[in-house]
Amino acid sequence: MKLATIRWSDSTGTRAAVLDGGRLHPLDLADVGAWLEAGSPDWAQHVDGVPVETADADFAPLVPRPGKIICVGLNYRDHILEMGRELPEYPTLFAKFADSLVGARDDVVLPAGSGRVDWEGELAVVVGRTVSHADEDAARDAIAGFAVSNDVSARDFQRRTPQWLQGKTFDSTTPLGPYLVTADETGPEPDLTITCSVDGAVKQQSRTSELVFGPVELVRYISAITILRPGDVILTGTPGGVGDGRDPKEYLRPGSVLTTTIETLGETENLCTETRTTHVH
Amino acid sequence: MKLATIRWSDSTGTRAAVLDGGRLHPLDLADVGAWLEAGSPDWAQHVDGVPVETADADFAPLVPRPGKIICVGLNYRDHILEMGRELPEYPTLFAKFADSLVGARDDVVLPAGSGRVDWEGELAVVVGRTVSHADEDAARDAIAGFAVSNDVSARDFQRRTPQWLQGKTFDSTTPLGPYLVTADETGPEPDLTITCSVDGAVKQQSRTSELVFGPVELVRYISAITILRPGDVILTGTPGGVGDGRDPKEYLRPGSVLTTTIETLGETENLCTETRTTHVH
Repeated sequence: MKLATIRWSDSTGTRAAVLDGGRLHPLDLADVGAWLEAGSPDWAQHVDGVPVETADADFAPLVPRPGKIICVGLNYRDHILEMGRELPEYPTLFAKFADSLVGARDDVVLPAGSGRVDWEGELAVVVGRTVSHADEDAARDAIAGFAVSNDVSARDFQRRTPQWLQGKTFDSTTPLGPYLVTADETGPEPDLTITCSVDGAVKQQSRTSELVFGPVELVRYISAITILRPGDVILTGTPGGVGDGRDPKEYLRPGSVLTTTIETLGETENLCTETRTTHVH
Repeated sequence: MKLATIRWSDSTGTRAAVLDGGRLHPLDLADVGAWLEAGSPDWAQHVDGVPVETADADFAPLVPRPGKIICVGLNYRDHILEMGRELPEYPTLFAKFADSLVGARDDVVLPAGSGRVDWEGELAVVVGRTVSHADEDAARDAIAGFAVSNDVSARDFQRRTPQWLQGKTFDSTTPLGPYLVTADETGPEPDLTITCSVDGAVKQQSRTSELVFGPVELVRYISAITILRPGDVILTGTPGGVGDGRDPKEYLRPGSVLTTTIETLGETENLCTETRTTHVH
């Protein structure tokens, strides 16, 4: 089952929608987060409105306001070993805020003041149940499904200080979508090809089975630190091939088209634009 | 003006309340975050219910669900200089999640699996207006006021990996309260004595004027990265005297009483208890 959050011209602003027969069927729920909070009900009971062609859909961030977005650092076995490093004992965790999210076809807004904006194609885990101190079974059951994301990072801001947050959470930089593909279709530990391309040239390619800490282990580990709830998102880390690791280094520029693809899950394609420095106060 | 969020036996669960004449007057707003989102309206128009003695009040986290909690690393001039370090060029920023918050008199729940839980008394800035890319004036205007907090940290988890998040965001570890003292009473850059005590013994003491990056500069800097909204919270960093920097090292234990006091703002006093490992699923 594939669900999306699409922008909708009513007071809610968005709608959850289910992909069926090649079209998106809008539900009477504001977004995929609301569908998960409602306990992932049978969608046929919630259809409300005329279906939309996927080509015409305006995809919002899959979960527009997750309570938590938890990101994982270096987590691809092939990349760690090629760098000659040891596999880590614990996952490196950091956060980003919901305002960083954009939809599957939205612009990625390059942060003002950064000349080193880089790509990080990632598998996103979407939480479907409330879990705290989960064992392996509970962790598996808590995974609603998976989506495509890209942890776009301003390397200069990321390295200004020992903590990465400020390079990771610029507003409107992190695609999340287009679909939540539920775990009954993928299994809880999917082995899928992940690819990140810039202007059509493949920059990163790996398989999600190369994750050192897979989805179930991440939910287990994180839930021992903080309670996870429906709609929370875990970005699982990126494989080798980021721009900052290349010789010469490469970065995203205004006009760059960033495409992140995960087999079965779909694709986000985002035009990079210059920041809109709107003074709001 | 001093406001609090107090637990209330109705469907909302909490109420914003204003301290006046030594008593807390409940408002028809669920919490201080809701009061800020409503544009900080005249409280007299919102009084709804019988006043409560402060001694009888059950303080919830001052803002129970901030959209963002942004924490600042090493930021006290006296402490940095005594350690022989250079003053930083940029603030070190990291996040914590709302589930980490507790009220001014709630228990601090010591994380299971950590034997190195430490104190970090901190001045909290509470945002009152939406700001993005704020200049200095807009940043000053965006500060609703200040509160007492303690960025209780599990040092072992904090140091498991290069990113501190996992040691900083255990559920129910971060007191925030008891009052929002509005900036018209303190000014936007208050110079106040901050003290953190454990079992009555003073462990940290400094003045908030020792902050390298003060409240206005932090709002300005952070708002260039991510939009700030009413109810967002900035924890400004801790002075010297943490347990992990002592010889021998000292940590919080079950039964420890953690008291954080900031002149004018008030005091949080929290009993440290063992974790409740409740498996929720």
